Amino acid sequence: MALTIGVDVGGTKVAAGVVDHHGRILEQVRRPTPSTNPKETAEVIAEVVNLLKDKFVDVKAVGVGAAGFVDEARAMVHFAPNLAWRDEPIKQKIEERVELPVVVENDANAMAWGEARFGAGRGEDFLVCVTLGTGIGGGIVVDGNLYRGRFGIGGEIGHFRVVPEGRRCGCGNRGCWEQYASGSALVAEARDLARVSPALAGRLLELGDGEPNGISGPEITQAAREGDPAAIECFQTIARWVGQGLADLTAILDPGVFIIGGGLSDAGDLLLAPVRAAFETMLTGRGHRAFADIRIAELGSAAGIVGAADLARI
Amino acid sequence: MALTIGVDVGGTKVAAGVVDHHGRILEQVRRPTPSTNPKETAEVIAEVVNLLKDKFVDVKAVGVGAAGFVDEARAMVHFAPNLAWRDEPIKQKIEERVELPVVVENDANAMAWGEARFGAGRGEDFLVCVTLGTGIGGGIVVDGNLYRGRFGIGGEIGHFRVVPEGRRCGCGNRGCWEQYASGSALVAEARDLARVSPALAGRLLELGDGEPNGISGPEITQAAREGDPAAIECFQTIARWVGQGLADLTAILDPGVFIIGGGLSDAGDLLLAPVRAAFETMLTGRGHRAFADIRIAELGSAAGIVGAADLARI
Amino acid sequence: MALTIGVDVGGTKVAAGVVDHHGRILEQVRRPTPSTNPKETAEVIAEVVNLLKDKFVDVKAVGVGAAGFVDEARAMVHFAPNLAWRDEPIKQKIEERVELPVVVENDANAMAWGEARFGAGRGEDFLVCVTLGTGIGGGIVVDGNLYRGRFGIGGEIGHFRVVPEGRRCGCGNRGCWEQYASGSALVAEARDLARVSPALAGRLLELGDGEPNGISGPEITQAAREGDPAAIECFQTIARWVGQGLADLTAILDPGVFIIGGGLSDAGDLLLAPVRAAFETMLTGRGHRAFADIRIAELGSAAGIVGAADLARI
Amino acid sequence: MALTIGVDVGGTKVAAGVVDHHGRILEQVRRPTPSTNPKETAEVIAEVVNLLKDKFVDVKAVGVGAAGFVDEARAMVHFAPNLAWRDEPIKQKIEERVELPVVVENDANAMAWGEARFGAGRGEDFLVCVTLGTGIGGGIVVDGNLYRGRFGIGGEIGHFRVVPEGRRCGCGNRGCWEQYASGSALVAEARDLARVSPALAGRLLELGDGEPNGISGPEITQAAREGDPAAIECFQTIARWVGQGLADLTAILDPGVFIIGGGLSDAGDLLLAPVRAAFETMLTGRGHRAFADIRIAELGSAAGIVGAADLARI
Repeated sequence: MALTIGVDVGGTKVAAGVVDHHGRILEQVRRPTPSTNPKETAEVIAEVVNLLKDKFVDVKAVGVGAAGFVDEARAMVHFAPNLAWRDEPIKQKIEERVELPVVVENDANAMAWGEARFGAGRGEDFLVCVTLGTGIGGGIVVDGNLYRGRFGIGGEIGHFRVVPEGRRCGCGNRGCWEQYASGSALVAEARDLARVSPALAGRLLELGDGEPNGISGPEITQAAREGDPAAIECFQTIARWVGQGLADLTAILDPGVFIIGGGLSDAGDLLLAPVRAAFETMLTGRGHRAFADIRIAELGSAAGIVGAADLARI
Repeated sequence: MALTIGVDVGGTKVAAGVVDHHGRILEQVRRPTPSTNPKETAEVIAEVVNLLKDKFVDVKAVGVGAAGFVDEARAMVHFAPNLAWRDEPIKQKIEERVELPVVVENDANAMAWGEARFGAGRGEDFLVCVTLGTGIGGGIVVDGNLYRGRFGIGGEIGHFRVVPEGRRCGCGNRGCWEQYASGSALVAEARDLARVSPALAGRLLELGDGEPNGISGPEITQAAREGDPAAIECFQTIARWVGQGLADLTAILDPGVFIIGGGLSDAGDLLLAPVRAAFETMLTGRGHRAFADIRIAELGSAAGIVGAADLARI
Repeated sequence: MALTIGVDVGGTKVAAGVVDHHGRILEQVRRPTPSTNPKETAEVIAEVVNLLKDKFVDVKAVGVGAAGFVDEARAMVHFAPNLAWRDEPIKQKIEERVELPVVVENDANAMAWGEARFGAGRGEDFLVCVTLGTGIGGGIVVDGNLYRGRFGIGGEIGHFRVVPEGRRCGCGNRGCWEQYASGSALVAEARDLARVSPALAGRLLELGDGEPNGISGPEITQAAREGDPAAIECFQTIARWVGQGLADLTAILDPGVFIIGGGLSDAGDLLLAPVRAAFETMLTGRGHRAFADIRIAELGSAAGIVGAADLARI
Repeated sequence: MALTIGVDVGGTKVAAGVVDHHGRILEQVRRPTPSTNPKETAEVIAEVVNLLKDKFVDVKAVGVGAAGFVDEARAMVHFAPNLAWRDEPIKQKIEERVELPVVVENDANAMAWGEARFGAGRGEDFLVCVTLGTGIGGGIVVDGNLYRGRFGIGGEIGHFRVVPEGRRCGCGNRGCWEQYASGSALVAEARDLARVSPALAGRLLELGDGEPNGISGPEITQAAREGDPAAIECFQTIARWVGQGLADLTAILDPGVFIIGGGLSDAGDLLLAPVRAAFETMLTGRGHRAFADIRIAELGSAAGIVGAADLARI
């Protein structure tokens, strides 16, 4: 069977891999992203693709995943907040440099597809992948296909409003779900707690070198694992918001599985147990319905490469 | 081409029609719903189907639309709030009595399908139909197919939460969208206004025979058409909530069209203009994206019959 | 010691009594209120005062309590929602007819003063009386004196905002405390529950003759006393809002006692226990401070007469 | 007439002054606060008092203002967040060292008293002083006297709740007014804006050396004075919350004047104009009532010294 290359273009690094039809990465390569220069970014992508292509003659296509709004033809990136791309014809620019067909996809969609085909969603035809990191990314699979929507930008699930007049969001609105349920929201919660109640947050501050701003995700997870009540309270607050959002998505999409990925998912059961508990008490029609299983993602940071590569194959 | 029969089973009446492949209703018949008796309800459905089938020999199948949770096999109604059906095997019960293949569908889905195929959504592959009546019903069309979700109960778009600790909803939760943006919400808004500020709501009270509880939807629409500021304020309040919800659905689904149906849609531009205005100021990523057109439904109460009939054809 | 007459002018009845300096009512008389006619209302007040004055020669002054905004000279009622009074010179009108000095006072202030001097607040110099009825009335005692504020209309404690963009209030705003914590709020909560979840609210509906609108305060109290979970849930919801408001008032006023009166206070411990529990978890600076006792009012509907009479004595 | 000494004990400095009965400061002295050591703090206070007392033989008493909960006898500080005082008998400790009568007062109360007697509140008997700084401090004057409440800790007006489940507050609650309307809230608003919408907040970021955390109050005021729309939007957001809180306090206290002090008041009309506009649209009973004037404080940082000194005189 043919091979394809998946490229995950982030704000800090470009990661690419050769992937077979079982979703296995045969070889991988990374480069820093020259993120302020759109032209150089395209060149770096082409460089890593050519490097891999020279080693694997069977490579037939390239999938590129990037944060941002991708057009419905999967050729152009309208807007990528971290990459200085504005209406950038990525497909064409890369194809000129690598002589292979290229498809472009939103990064959260690529990750969702990777998990759906080869990770926690194997065998499921209706699922939603929720990436809890700096923001919340989403990917939706409907009847075994990746869902893109009419204009190619569906699945921006971090941006439905959960609090009227709530916290300011980078999208220009207030009260978006990602302001309450992302990894950043967990960190903000813990720093706030440390700022206003330093006595309560003693262990968190200790791990953060005495400064609220020194506390980040891994410290909170560590403190929660040790049983620190302040850290556990922070996790429970975020988990309630995650559960609420999944219940909201269930009313609309009724998926068979939710897959939770992103940095926050590293906390595993510490997150999953209260998320499930909250979700089940917030479902509309509970008691009269079946509902989705909630699972932690399995592929970690490889999901984006594997998913982008597989989407190039279709 | 073959004909099919569509049946719209409401809490007060059963309406059935013979429908051709252009979505035209050739003949229609109605009966009161014996809603407290599940067995009699099935008998009435069978009766109207047999009546129509005797007149049109080309009828090949029957589609039944009913409010409630329908299973993914489209055979069983798990729970229908207005019909006393609990895990009722409707498909089998009707098929025994009419000797035609029967499919069962959620009524909002049937309406959405009718509008998508033959009404305001003709030619669109990605749309959401939003029925603003007592509650909010929803139907989603994805890539030209009706979306049902993994367990058959997707599209319950009235029940995502828009206000934490908000108004109590019949689904057991608080703060559901339908408590703020439905026809009932408009009526509640006007009655509240009349109760607490009778001087402001003079025209509304006059139309309601002097009693807040005498005010219902048509009176509010009439007063707003006359230019009554209180009625217009009520419409604007509801329209903001409708627009907000459409913006939320856009983040997730990115459809090409929203179709607004239900009793509230009778207000036409009185509703549509402020809904569009609100929607466009609340969209995530506005300025960097295309977005859905918002249209009033075209088929009125026929949409459910036409949609159910057409779904039986597929 | 001299006697005074207190008059409590409500929307439906005028109640007057001769009161001694121990706060005892020696004789009482009632008349229906001709509430749509300001002139007749004054005449009825004068009539009951003259009736009592003829029997008790020692009467030296009259205090009149009425719902509305009373001016700082305690002579004029600027605005009384239930009595059609607008800038009405009540003091002068009554004095002309009864030949005794008259003072006018807001009714909630009169009740608060009655309770402070002769009821649940005896011996306390700093207290807040909270009347939970149709709305929420308030009376504040500071250093042993009734607090009126600079313009005579302080103590309108039902109208600080507790929910941004919340429920509409008769005062023209949204989200006022009285929309969440009054007797009316309890009734609205129970009716809402019965409307959206009739199965849960079976006992309440039974007591309300099968109709949500048939449920009123006494039915809810009865059901809660029987142990009905739906009624108890309604009380707990309201009690949390009462407790929150008392905590808010404590931050500002730090009183020694809260006295809870009005129709809702008839529920006694059913209300008081969850109010106290909520209050204590919501206090600012809890753990580092003393805080108010919360008590049920003792004088019932006599508080307004006794308080108005005593205020005329000062 | 006799002189008194006022001492303003802050978390970073101790400022003391000799004050005459016109509220004039005749001489002033400052020392750094040894804030982590309660004993040394008392010693520094005594040292500055003795220094001034040696120069002015007519000094008869000392008033000490400090952030924290002061007991009703004005002798003990139960809890001072910035001074490590816990149930500290300040009155006794200072009296032993200075041989003058000492009274202790909450610092916001002392400031309010200074403004009421000699600043923006001269001649007013009912006023509320609102200090918008790191948090919100309050002082209430009732009938020409400083209001303390039953347990000495009234006037903590920064801690009534304005948003259910809102922002975390140092007092242990969520949603307190000071989280939305203080100087810190303005800074948080601007930093949030700069973080999520750097393009919009270009001028603010420039003034903050390119970093959201580099933006503080003076930069926001400067940008707003230059006409920067982002800074003006931040001021308007905060001003709406200030106005709402003043409207809430008006419902309860109905004062004749609000005096706005603290760092945020340095913005003058930039703050005052939108505060007044918001206040007047949010008043309960507007249209039927007189209401308070809102003024900027006049004494600046001297208010605490002057007020504490004058309170020692009474």
